Amino acid sequence: MHMTVMPVGRSAVRIIDQTLLPNVERFIEIDNADDAYEAIKRLQVRGAPAIGVFTSLILAVIANKIEKSDYKSFREEFFSISSYLNSSRPTAVNLSWACKEMETVVEKSIDVPKIKELLFERANEIMEEDVKASIAIGKFGQKLIKDGYGILTHCNAGMLATVEYGTATAPIYMAKESGISGLRIYCDETRPLLQGARLTSYELAREGLDVTVLCDNMANSLMREKKVDIIFVGADRIAQNGDVANKIGTASLAVNAAYYKIPFYVCAPSSTFDKNCKSGTDIEIEYRDEFEITTLWYNEPMVPKGVKAYNPAFDITDHSLITGIISESGIWNLDRGI
Amino acid sequence: MHMTVMPVGRSAVRIIDQTLLPNVERFIEIDNADDAYEAIKRLQVRGAPAIGVFTSLILAVIANKIEKSDYKSFREEFFSISSYLNSSRPTAVNLSWACKEMETVVEKSIDVPKIKELLFERANEIMEEDVKASIAIGKFGQKLIKDGYGILTHCNAGMLATVEYGTATAPIYMAKESGISGLRIYCDETRPLLQGARLTSYELAREGLDVTVLCDNMANSLMREKKVDIIFVGADRIAQNGDVANKIGTASLAVNAAYYKIPFYVCAPSSTFDKNCKSGTDIEIEYRDEFEITTLWYNEPMVPKGVKAYNPAFDITDHSLITGIISESGIWNLDRGI
Repeated sequence: MHMTVMPVGRSAVRIIDQTLLPNVERFIEIDNADDAYEAIKRLQVRGAPAIGVFTSLILAVIANKIEKSDYKSFREEFFSISSYLNSSRPTAVNLSWACKEMETVVEKSIDVPKIKELLFERANEIMEEDVKASIAIGKFGQKLIKDGYGILTHCNAGMLATVEYGTATAPIYMAKESGISGLRIYCDETRPLLQGARLTSYELAREGLDVTVLCDNMANSLMREKKVDIIFVGADRIAQNGDVANKIGTASLAVNAAYYKIPFYVCAPSSTFDKNCKSGTDIEIEYRDEFEITTLWYNEPMVPKGVKAYNPAFDITDHSLITGIISESGIWNLDRGI
Repeated sequence: MHMTVMPVGRSAVRIIDQTLLPNVERFIEIDNADDAYEAIKRLQVRGAPAIGVFTSLILAVIANKIEKSDYKSFREEFFSISSYLNSSRPTAVNLSWACKEMETVVEKSIDVPKIKELLFERANEIMEEDVKASIAIGKFGQKLIKDGYGILTHCNAGMLATVEYGTATAPIYMAKESGISGLRIYCDETRPLLQGARLTSYELAREGLDVTVLCDNMANSLMREKKVDIIFVGADRIAQNGDVANKIGTASLAVNAAYYKIPFYVCAPSSTFDKNCKSGTDIEIEYRDEFEITTLWYNEPMVPKGVKAYNPAFDITDHSLITGIISESGIWNLDRGI
């Protein structure tokens, strides 16, 4: 698996265009703020941790190109770019977190060449921290998996959403590496953008896992048929009370998992925890274009003219529906008990 | 709205090809068993009550064409055709119910010309009973609707699934006719075949209702935002304990409705009740081709090669999740209380 996000020296950031998978594997190089903004908004790069890493890398690249040499002008331009990128998508905290991390670096010195150096250093650290977090999440999560388990996941919180291993997929990859056998992985297709069908099944199958895709509305049947032993999902923002914002459909899955008493775990690095959000009601939900539901992917529109479409990109899963949250520091058990 | 299913004299049955909606309105005439089998299997005609009406009408048409004049040969050919049509889809009871109703007619006499006459009579009765049942369901259900209600429905249990008014949509149409105002109707798109997006939103919008489509995995969000006051769905088979087989996604919706304490009603004529099924576990679920999930509707495959797809066409909603079942004889309140 190629890395989802990687620096091209100090001149650009290379990403795999996730809008084209699984049929086309195309890499693109981003080296300016407008293309970076579009790449995030159009989901060419997506997945909360990957967005965080991409944002820090591209901010270092762009800062390096700022020609102003006096600190005040440099700082002003940097903050303006950082704030612009931060406005590309509202829900995943990793975007604003990465912007803030990089802004903090800019405040550390008034020596512009030194700041440019420090920005590359911090961006590389963030990338390395992401890899380490995925590995740690994988190791903690792997202990919950047994031979022959059916594992359900939603959207893509995989390699493609991070630098390596993923978050929700890390326990699966680690379990496989450590010899746990007979795993059956189920991926919700995840309408409307089909990240589960297009991305998660793609990366899991490439790693030799047994993968089955299902429509989101079929997860209940799969659980009723006792084919699901555990559920792992990622997160885009976690409030202080344990409420989780994640890809639309996560909350419905969690309600069904609670009904069938199937363990439901959220996997996310600590950069996903937002100290400014007390509960899920404090988290802003992104609403996206109706076109994604009515027309995208189809040869012809699938919804008649004059009919509206409701298209929230994320939902809030109440902490009471979550068995535990797995981060790089361990498993935080929540209210659900099992 | 043109009728979904109607006789063309005694020579054929006319249906609107539901696989082409909403972009193309094409009517087709069916006059033989092979085309009838395909029309049911490929969902050109679909919706449990419509399948029942279509089956009885087409059996009368086909019987009329049987050239054998001795009762024994006629009976043999009729039963063979009836049994063939009955094998086209397993879950909706209305198919086997209609076959059995027509077989009973054949047992009533040994006078072949008279039987042919009686078959047309019974088929017309079944069609009229369907209209009456929809109207009665609508009248009972309408009492549950108030001005400004948000009403969620799943799949298509509308005019297109019946002869007129629909089952789950009948209370909505009746409410509108009786002057209840400000209704907002939400349609789950209903993957993989998008009957909600393509069919329900189409017929509701044509009747001037305010319609919004959503992906199935968004219903939870809609409920959390308090936009849903009541849910109406149809049924393909109802067991004696109140368990309901309906389009895949219904059970997930019911679990979420119970979580948010939103009234959840199943609308179905009494022909949908199956005395031979004690509970949902007795109901056979149809599994359909993986292609419907992986490729259908898309320009390119949306699931990589080597990845399987799980595609049950129906699921079982436990009676404990259902507020009530509305049939032509009234509202049967189930366990959920609200």
